[in-house]
Amino acid sequence: MSEQPTTGPIALIVLAAGQGSRMQSDLPKVLHPLGGMPLVAHALAAGRTLEPETVIVVAGHGAEAVRRSVGKLDPEAKIALQTEQLGTGHAVQQTIPQLEGFSGKVMVLYGDTPFIGAETLAALIKAPADVAVLGFEAADPGRYGRLIVEGDELQRIVEYKDATEAERAIALCNSGVMALDADLLRSLIARLGNDNASGEYYLTDLVALARAEGQRARVVICDEAETLGINTRAELAAAEAAFQTRARAQALADGVTLADPATVWFALDTAIGRDAVVGQNVVFGPGVTVESGAEILPFCHLEGCHISAGATVGPFARLRPGAELGGDVHVGNFVEIKNSVLDEGVKVGHLTYLGDAHVGERTNIGAGTITCNYDGVMKHRTEIGVDAFIGSDTMLVAPVRVGDRAMTGSGSTITDNVPDDALAIGRARQVTKPGLASRLMAALRQKKREH
Amino acid sequence: MSEQPTTGPIALIVLAAGQGSRMQSDLPKVLHPLGGMPLVAHALAAGRTLEPETVIVVAGHGAEAVRRSVGKLDPEAKIALQTEQLGTGHAVQQTIPQLEGFSGKVMVLYGDTPFIGAETLAALIKAPADVAVLGFEAADPGRYGRLIVEGDELQRIVEYKDATEAERAIALCNSGVMALDADLLRSLIARLGNDNASGEYYLTDLVALARAEGQRARVVICDEAETLGINTRAELAAAEAAFQTRARAQALADGVTLADPATVWFALDTAIGRDAVVGQNVVFGPGVTVESGAEILPFCHLEGCHISAGATVGPFARLRPGAELGGDVHVGNFVEIKNSVLDEGVKVGHLTYLGDAHVGERTNIGAGTITCNYDGVMKHRTEIGVDAFIGSDTMLVAPVRVGDRAMTGSGSTITDNVPDDALAIGRARQVTKPGLASRLMAALRQKKREH
Amino acid sequence: MSEQPTTGPIALIVLAAGQGSRMQSDLPKVLHPLGGMPLVAHALAAGRTLEPETVIVVAGHGAEAVRRSVGKLDPEAKIALQTEQLGTGHAVQQTIPQLEGFSGKVMVLYGDTPFIGAETLAALIKAPADVAVLGFEAADPGRYGRLIVEGDELQRIVEYKDATEAERAIALCNSGVMALDADLLRSLIARLGNDNASGEYYLTDLVALARAEGQRARVVICDEAETLGINTRAELAAAEAAFQTRARAQALADGVTLADPATVWFALDTAIGRDAVVGQNVVFGPGVTVESGAEILPFCHLEGCHISAGATVGPFARLRPGAELGGDVHVGNFVEIKNSVLDEGVKVGHLTYLGDAHVGERTNIGAGTITCNYDGVMKHRTEIGVDAFIGSDTMLVAPVRVGDRAMTGSGSTITDNVPDDALAIGRARQVTKPGLASRLMAALRQKKREH
Repeated sequence: MSEQPTTGPIALIVLAAGQGSRMQSDLPKVLHPLGGMPLVAHALAAGRTLEPETVIVVAGHGAEAVRRSVGKLDPEAKIALQTEQLGTGHAVQQTIPQLEGFSGKVMVLYGDTPFIGAETLAALIKAPADVAVLGFEAADPGRYGRLIVEGDELQRIVEYKDATEAERAIALCNSGVMALDADLLRSLIARLGNDNASGEYYLTDLVALARAEGQRARVVICDEAETLGINTRAELAAAEAAFQTRARAQALADGVTLADPATVWFALDTAIGRDAVVGQNVVFGPGVTVESGAEILPFCHLEGCHISAGATVGPFARLRPGAELGGDVHVGNFVEIKNSVLDEGVKVGHLTYLGDAHVGERTNIGAGTITCNYDGVMKHRTEIGVDAFIGSDTMLVAPVRVGDRAMTGSGSTITDNVPDDALAIGRARQVTKPGLASRLMAALRQKKREH
Repeated sequence: MSEQPTTGPIALIVLAAGQGSRMQSDLPKVLHPLGGMPLVAHALAAGRTLEPETVIVVAGHGAEAVRRSVGKLDPEAKIALQTEQLGTGHAVQQTIPQLEGFSGKVMVLYGDTPFIGAETLAALIKAPADVAVLGFEAADPGRYGRLIVEGDELQRIVEYKDATEAERAIALCNSGVMALDADLLRSLIARLGNDNASGEYYLTDLVALARAEGQRARVVICDEAETLGINTRAELAAAEAAFQTRARAQALADGVTLADPATVWFALDTAIGRDAVVGQNVVFGPGVTVESGAEILPFCHLEGCHISAGATVGPFARLRPGAELGGDVHVGNFVEIKNSVLDEGVKVGHLTYLGDAHVGERTNIGAGTITCNYDGVMKHRTEIGVDAFIGSDTMLVAPVRVGDRAMTGSGSTITDNVPDDALAIGRARQVTKPGLASRLMAALRQKKREH
Repeated sequence: MSEQPTTGPIALIVLAAGQGSRMQSDLPKVLHPLGGMPLVAHALAAGRTLEPETVIVVAGHGAEAVRRSVGKLDPEAKIALQTEQLGTGHAVQQTIPQLEGFSGKVMVLYGDTPFIGAETLAALIKAPADVAVLGFEAADPGRYGRLIVEGDELQRIVEYKDATEAERAIALCNSGVMALDADLLRSLIARLGNDNASGEYYLTDLVALARAEGQRARVVICDEAETLGINTRAELAAAEAAFQTRARAQALADGVTLADPATVWFALDTAIGRDAVVGQNVVFGPGVTVESGAEILPFCHLEGCHISAGATVGPFARLRPGAELGGDVHVGNFVEIKNSVLDEGVKVGHLTYLGDAHVGERTNIGAGTITCNYDGVMKHRTEIGVDAFIGSDTMLVAPVRVGDRAMTGSGSTITDNVPDDALAIGRARQVTKPGLASRLMAALRQKKREH
């Protein structure tokens, strides 16, 4: 749903250096999870809809962890280091070297402000101004910075601590998000001062500097809910609830059946088709796609997997990254699938672990089957053909291949490849000893009495 | 809790032909689930309390699926086909052939209106009138049809689209539910016209026709909440929430212990005894009965099963249709029971699948036991006697019988019957190779290094 | 968080004899669970913060069950029997023999009033009075007893049934909780009468008797929410919700990450460190401690266990009493651990039952491993050394020991000890029969056709 902006090149800056001390956590604030992904992923995802030429994340507190996480989320993003936290202006200043040669608009977002929508960013970038600031009418303006507007023109932004009573009476508040001309940014940023109540370099002061140069500054207004920032765990929990409420309503509107919407947790990137059915208590981690008409029964945990049309999953199933379920596949209870492709019509009903495997069409995997994919040092693959029948409690000691239409006897440990059409069996013949069970039990009871 | 009506024979008609296009679904609206059963099951269940002589469901959109579903819910119900959806009057007209020879009262219900109670239907059928219409005082009458009453007599029903401003000011609204004399229905239905704002044949117009013939028409009033109809997935989710809220309150009032009522989901027909304990996150599918004093631990999924007094189930247990647990049975974690009878005192503690089995009193089923009930083509049964001891990881290759007081060695695959009191074992003897583990690991590590 | 009172010796009396008939239950009211423990445990825990010399629980209805439960919660507590329920005064009278020789303050609490806080009790015990009564300003005084105060002095307590209209207009209500001088209690309790609307002996009448003797009586005021008593299952459900709301908020404030606070259930004694992560749908039974930085994935059920820093648990894991997980231990899905110590770095990834075991550092337990700890009569222990590798589907028939750096072959049943560094294997060699699978399947299909 990317909006193609009508502007020129864009550079995206995401400020993610803050300590978040009110989180009571050693984890950098922007790495706390929301919708199954780090907070910073939300600003990055919204910013990516602008199709920026350059993405720079300013890291500071926990920079190494932030760098690793951002590297996974957006491998092309650059990191700028802000070793001391001296304010938003100072943070943006750290990106100037990486903006060298860039000409166009710079969009400044915040890693702890996850709900600003793609439409809002598009409106901001298109605003007819040299500096455009995202504002909102606050229900309770409290300690937000205030936007001082005259006519159409934004004159300056005043922090609450530095505001007069008259200024504090203004309800139009500053979200901090800003889009501005790159050349303007470069020319003004060094002139920011820290002669204010906090002793910090405010990015917001750029507006007054730009106005003094005769540049145009405008406000774009968004809904207050979009500007929600996260400072405490309680706020994070409230944001998660807001995220989920929205995602659930969207899923219902899209024609997904949710048995109890309040007990389905979506991730930022979950994609589910119309008439898919999702039971109670299903957790979608990142990277899940579900086709139309698939059914997910209650108590499932899904991450990085694909579920095709007609497939049924659960209850009590876990699909881990790399699980790909073809059409009409059935994955039943107490089954874990990891990094495995199950072709159309495969059945895995009960108590099974499939890891690093490929299973051919229509093959039936008996209860208790385990791919022994780890030898203590390395992981190995299991290949199973089409129309095969894996007996219950089969151990598949990888690397191993079971051929098309092959069978394994239940209780077998399969260490060698099984050719197409062959039966493999690896178990001792049953021996039955008449009367021995009763004698053994009697002896055990006697022993217990003697204790 | 059936109320014996004091009237004569009753025919029940359930209108279930609508497309439900606002559901964003290919599934016919009346087949969407509520309380673990299709929407249409709720109207059928309420209607069944009247002990009707005849039940006719009018199907149209997705008729084949509706026919299959109704066939399972109420095998005696007949289906009338409405191939074009030309209004409620037209829908009822399709039932006239199947009403041939019927004399008595006809009750018209709606497949997408699940909350009309048995008491309300009883009041409607007993109303002293030739046509009795179920009405409600709407908090916000909006676009409902209005009931035009003079004195005690209902004169006519006017659809919102066709109503005057004065009529729209009336708060007494039409639920659509109607009970009327079969002969009257037959004599008037062909006279319904479609000269109205929607161009549809309205069942509601029967009232004015009946009045013109000098017949008595009355309104019976119910609570607005009973008349809730489902048109969107969001409404369905709200209806599900309302259903669950009521079912949870009823369970508490009946003396059931619910650790967190908001995380227990009941089905329409769930029956639970006093002092039964239900933990967090338990899903009751259809057809579950739980006796007094049974305990269901958190994270259980139950369908079509019976749990006797003193039994404990879960956490993480799944009981599928046909699971019958006797007194004091214990079913523990990661256990699935399907179509199996467990007699008094049986213990199935961990990681087990029992399907198509019968287990005798006091028998202990070891962890990891699996009934291998499917040979790739057919299902087979497993019989286990009383006081038996099934060792851990026993594969019971059905059809097979383990006798009373018999034992199986852990890790055995049992393919032949085990007589009473006998011990059966089918496993290789342990071989121990000194030092080999360390040498193997060293070799594997070396191999990895070489990669 | 015990407050050291500045008073002398304290005797704690908890009244727990009531029938609780409105609970619709055969279980004594004070044994219904709240926060994972019996109701009476909450009053006992709050009272214990006073460091009382003596604790007496007055039992009546279901006294034997109450005695057993209290014996587990607080082995030093004494039980006084009240065979007939003739009022609170009569209940306290039953404790007089056990108070013989005691000199100091007596604190009277109620087994069905779980929310009175330690600070409130400390304030009450320190009140400068011979009798101190805990009162509250009721939002809706309804049928509570009223506190009649003149100046600083509490004059008497009047039950609602016996109150005049003027007295009923008073909003200051009686919680029933009282701290009073032991000698005073002994001297006055026999003088309580039952000449009132209920015909019961009211403990509250002690106040007027004390005042008549010239003793000082004072009111200490607490928040109404603390005085909440439980009389119905709906009230119990509401109390559970209140308990959980508070516990969740506290956990967030303490720096615990909760993915969805509404789906985590804490017990009265749950202890979780900062930066521990708890996923959706986790149930904490009594006796769980979780160190900082441990991670509990969704769908876990934990009781009586310890989880060390760096450990990860779940999803779908069950830790039962006596499970102790060292640092960086990983317990994965469909795994049950009971009465077992897992040393640092142990991995138990999938489908495993470990009971009565000790596992040494860094050992890897393969999928499908089961400790066969029960022989049908007794339980036995399993010992596994450090750096061992237990192959998938290994049955460990206890008592048995697997040595340091030892391995077991997957699919083996281990009945004999395995020395350090040794490999043990107990499985049949695989036999492969070309073409047999296809012929078998064809035969089965033919047989089915003939049926």
